[in-house]
Amino acid sequence: MAILDRLRDLLGPGHVLTGDDAAGFGREWTGHYRWTPLAVLRPGSTEEVAGVLRLANAEGVPVVPLGGNTGLNGGTMAEGALMLSLARLNRIRELNAPARTIVAEAGVVLEALHEVAAVEGLSFPLTFGAKGSATVGGFLSTNAGGSNVLRYGSARALCLGLEVVLADGRVMNLMSALHKDNTGYDLRDLMIGAEGTLGVITAAVLRLVPAPRAYATALLGMESLGAALDLLNALQAGTGAAVEAFEFMPAAFMERLGALKPDLACPFAPQPVNILIETATTMAGEDPQARLEALLAEAFEAGQISEAVLAGSEAQRRKLWAMREAAAEITFTEPDLVDTDVALPLDRLETFLSRMHARLLAIDPGARELSVAHLGDGNIHYAAYPSDPALKPVIRAAVAEEAVALGGSFSAEHGVGVSKRATMAAHKDPVALEVMRAIKAALDPKNILNPGKVLP
Amino acid sequence: MAILDRLRDLLGPGHVLTGDDAAGFGREWTGHYRWTPLAVLRPGSTEEVAGVLRLANAEGVPVVPLGGNTGLNGGTMAEGALMLSLARLNRIRELNAPARTIVAEAGVVLEALHEVAAVEGLSFPLTFGAKGSATVGGFLSTNAGGSNVLRYGSARALCLGLEVVLADGRVMNLMSALHKDNTGYDLRDLMIGAEGTLGVITAAVLRLVPAPRAYATALLGMESLGAALDLLNALQAGTGAAVEAFEFMPAAFMERLGALKPDLACPFAPQPVNILIETATTMAGEDPQARLEALLAEAFEAGQISEAVLAGSEAQRRKLWAMREAAAEITFTEPDLVDTDVALPLDRLETFLSRMHARLLAIDPGARELSVAHLGDGNIHYAAYPSDPALKPVIRAAVAEEAVALGGSFSAEHGVGVSKRATMAAHKDPVALEVMRAIKAALDPKNILNPGKVLP
Ligand SMILES: Cc1cc2nc3c(=O)[nH]c(=O)nc-3n(C[C@H](O)[C@H](O)[C@H](O)COP(=O)(O)OP(=O)(O)OC[C@H]3O[C@@H](n4cnc5c(N)ncnc54)[C@H](O)[C@@H]3O)c2cc1C
Ligand SMILES: Cc1cc2nc3c(=O)[nH]c(=O)nc-3n(C[C@H](O)[C@H](O)[C@H](O)COP(=O)(O)OP(=O)(O)OC[C@H]3O[C@@H](n4cnc5c(N)ncnc54)[C@H](O)[C@@H]3O)c2cc1C
Repeated sequence: MAILDRLRDLLGPGHVLTGDDAAGFGREWTGHYRWTPLAVLRPGSTEEVAGVLRLANAEGVPVVPLGGNTGLNGGTMAEGALMLSLARLNRIRELNAPARTIVAEAGVVLEALHEVAAVEGLSFPLTFGAKGSATVGGFLSTNAGGSNVLRYGSARALCLGLEVVLADGRVMNLMSALHKDNTGYDLRDLMIGAEGTLGVITAAVLRLVPAPRAYATALLGMESLGAALDLLNALQAGTGAAVEAFEFMPAAFMERLGALKPDLACPFAPQPVNILIETATTMAGEDPQARLEALLAEAFEAGQISEAVLAGSEAQRRKLWAMREAAAEITFTEPDLVDTDVALPLDRLETFLSRMHARLLAIDPGARELSVAHLGDGNIHYAAYPSDPALKPVIRAAVAEEAVALGGSFSAEHGVGVSKRATMAAHKDPVALEVMRAIKAALDPKNILNPGKVLP
Repeated sequence: MAILDRLRDLLGPGHVLTGDDAAGFGREWTGHYRWTPLAVLRPGSTEEVAGVLRLANAEGVPVVPLGGNTGLNGGTMAEGALMLSLARLNRIRELNAPARTIVAEAGVVLEALHEVAAVEGLSFPLTFGAKGSATVGGFLSTNAGGSNVLRYGSARALCLGLEVVLADGRVMNLMSALHKDNTGYDLRDLMIGAEGTLGVITAAVLRLVPAPRAYATALLGMESLGAALDLLNALQAGTGAAVEAFEFMPAAFMERLGALKPDLACPFAPQPVNILIETATTMAGEDPQARLEALLAEAFEAGQISEAVLAGSEAQRRKLWAMREAAAEITFTEPDLVDTDVALPLDRLETFLSRMHARLLAIDPGARELSVAHLGDGNIHYAAYPSDPALKPVIRAAVAEEAVALGGSFSAEHGVGVSKRATMAAHKDPVALEVMRAIKAALDPKNILNPGKVLP
């Protein structure tokens, strides 16, 4: 094809992969989605990204941006499209420790950000299981969350500025390192979470925070989610909002974990509600462990919690986290999974789970549930394993329906991609969908950027 | 006019003000901008707002949304336009204390939010001088900031969901109360800060936080802004990010204040850099005053600060704040003011001020400066009083130029309105301006919503 020749001229022949060289790029990490890209492009600079888009836009050839390919919604599917890998845009352009900002290109891997910040006694506090592969461009384009959102916010809250290449190759410079900047429409937040359908992120200014000096980590057992929410509010007030993570693992999850990974078994008889809590401090002279113990002692006396194990060492802390981090593995490796990612108002999680339990059994008495939750954010990864795979769409629709009926969202942190487009059509406000379509048409009139994603 | 008759039918004749009844609405609070509106409309519900916009859009009549009219950029100018007051949409629809959310209509006044939240032991932490008049719709549409942004973020960070009426009267429901909701483009943040040019906000879901149990407030004197930034970072780490405010008043400000309001005179000989700092805690058993004293003692020994006065009572605290809060009055009431609102990367504030000082004197050796700053956010309200009013535009342009040259913004928190449109044209990334125009055209093709604002 003529366009491939011109792309080879632009990027150098080694950076336009086709045929066997591109074959490894034709699948999502779970293997659920498979496709054959037209080619995989590896530009080395923002200017080269712009050149690619100018060509593709002129020819009307679809372009799918690619980060670490760890997304969970089929967002990198690229049948017959150009996959635009940002992997070679992997420089840290600047780290300004006193101003607590870092300028990173789109291909920088999340874990690399963690490491670079740590050298300065700082932290980039976004983190989740895929941190060894997920990239700046990818976590911003999906507005990823993870375990520390409660304290530091999602990817959006950690981004001050962006550099974006638009569908026709124009480069938009929003590289502000400012905490306040009210100069017209908030195009940065429009690009964040747009899953590559409105522009290609090539670099970002990100916020850093002081690295904690000490952590306190505990596993708690309690009776109800209502009690857990009260405890969270009490701990937030009692620690000065120093709760970094508040993760929920129900009894069924604990039992499954113990069966599959005996060394990660729950240290007490699993309770209906098991919570991994972590607090942290940057304060000299503050002992977060002592403070947490005192607060938990109160909760114990008040009958709010029935079990508590505090991590006494970094090794014990790591082990408690390993329990939570095993979730992706034990959820995704079993067959016939219906995985979901819903958010609920904090006080309605319990109602959601009990309604969903009843509804699942009504649909399929033989189905099994397995959930974990970023509870502090109201974010549940509710998973079900039906006895008959044909029931998967019905269950998926039921989960979205129950979440939305309670004022919740059918996609908390994983985004829409292709896997939730039908749910978007069913549950998103129709006027909001019209506005999204109008914006998409205004910014990408030829519909070349990640077509068929996000918008139903 | 026929449209006024139809509006009277829609809203009731008492809610369509014209002639003398509308005269009081034809000016901004400083008196700098004056205009004659076609009429002032006072709808009583979202449906009535939608009805107004359907009519206005059909007829192509411009509509200017109006909150408390306290904005600082001429954003409510409405020559020959319909002013759409949200004052009657003033209900608190819901306060959910355990979930820490409040649903308020657009006309609710900021101070009323403070009061309602306080009853529950909670706080809505946005605050600034105009809190007795500014409204939910207005502070969201300008993405207002103020003194507590350092800890709690600007208006945007405190908003979870919105209800918006679009230019043609369609009602867009984005009323999510969720902390995570990745379902398509971030239309909420697009509407926030759009200054009424993309839609009319009729209601919002806002975040609440636990009210502090205790404060520590001090006035510090020091030599340089560099030292102040180091101190801020040390205090953030040393208090667990409990710094609520870090406000800068230079010597010239202190001297002016002492001259105009002797009871608010600086309690020590004004230093080059004077800082009002406040920390707060929600933690039982934590004494923020003792902690701040200990941290300041260290800073004193290290030679970082030369003067410090701690507020020993609520009355003394109020007095320190009154010094800072006098800024609007003493800045705006003197004639021939050039007021600006710039943001700088935190480590470049000092360079900005010294460059600007030299540049101002080069332009006008007789000019006087008077600045205050939300220093923790890098946000300076730099004001100058030229000896010749004809120099005002030159000085204004110089301020924007110096700020932008240092990676700063020419509008930190006050927005663009009409007063900074020329600066937008000169300094905003041209591609970003093209994208804003494309979005405006897509959402308001007849350009009826606050025309002539924001976009140059
Ligand atoms: C084990 C595991 C655990 C996870 N845990 C969490 C979790 O706790 N919380 C959470 O939120 N997510 C989680 N995720 C999903 C997470 O959102 C993604 O892993 C990550 O954000 C995507 O980054 P990536 O670089 O791999 O992007 P990719 O998967 O390559 O791409 C994701 C999407 O963004 C687009 N895109 C990528 N780069 C760009 C760019 N530069 N410009 C424009 N668009 C671009 C793609 O087209 C695609 O639509 C998890 C994933 C795994 C595998
Ligand atoms: C003494 C004083 C001190 C101030 N201090 C600060 C400060 O520290 N930090 C700061 O950020 N600001 C400050 N401001 C300005 C502040 O931003 C505004 O006062 C406030 O946010 C505007 O609210 P309002 O209801 O008065 O809006 P208005 O002034 O009525 O309107 C402001 C803009 O928003 C639009 N608008 C109003 N309501 C709606 C709606 N419902 N839907 C869509 N558009 C709408 C208007 O068309 C206009 O463009 C100060 C103002 C004063 C007078």
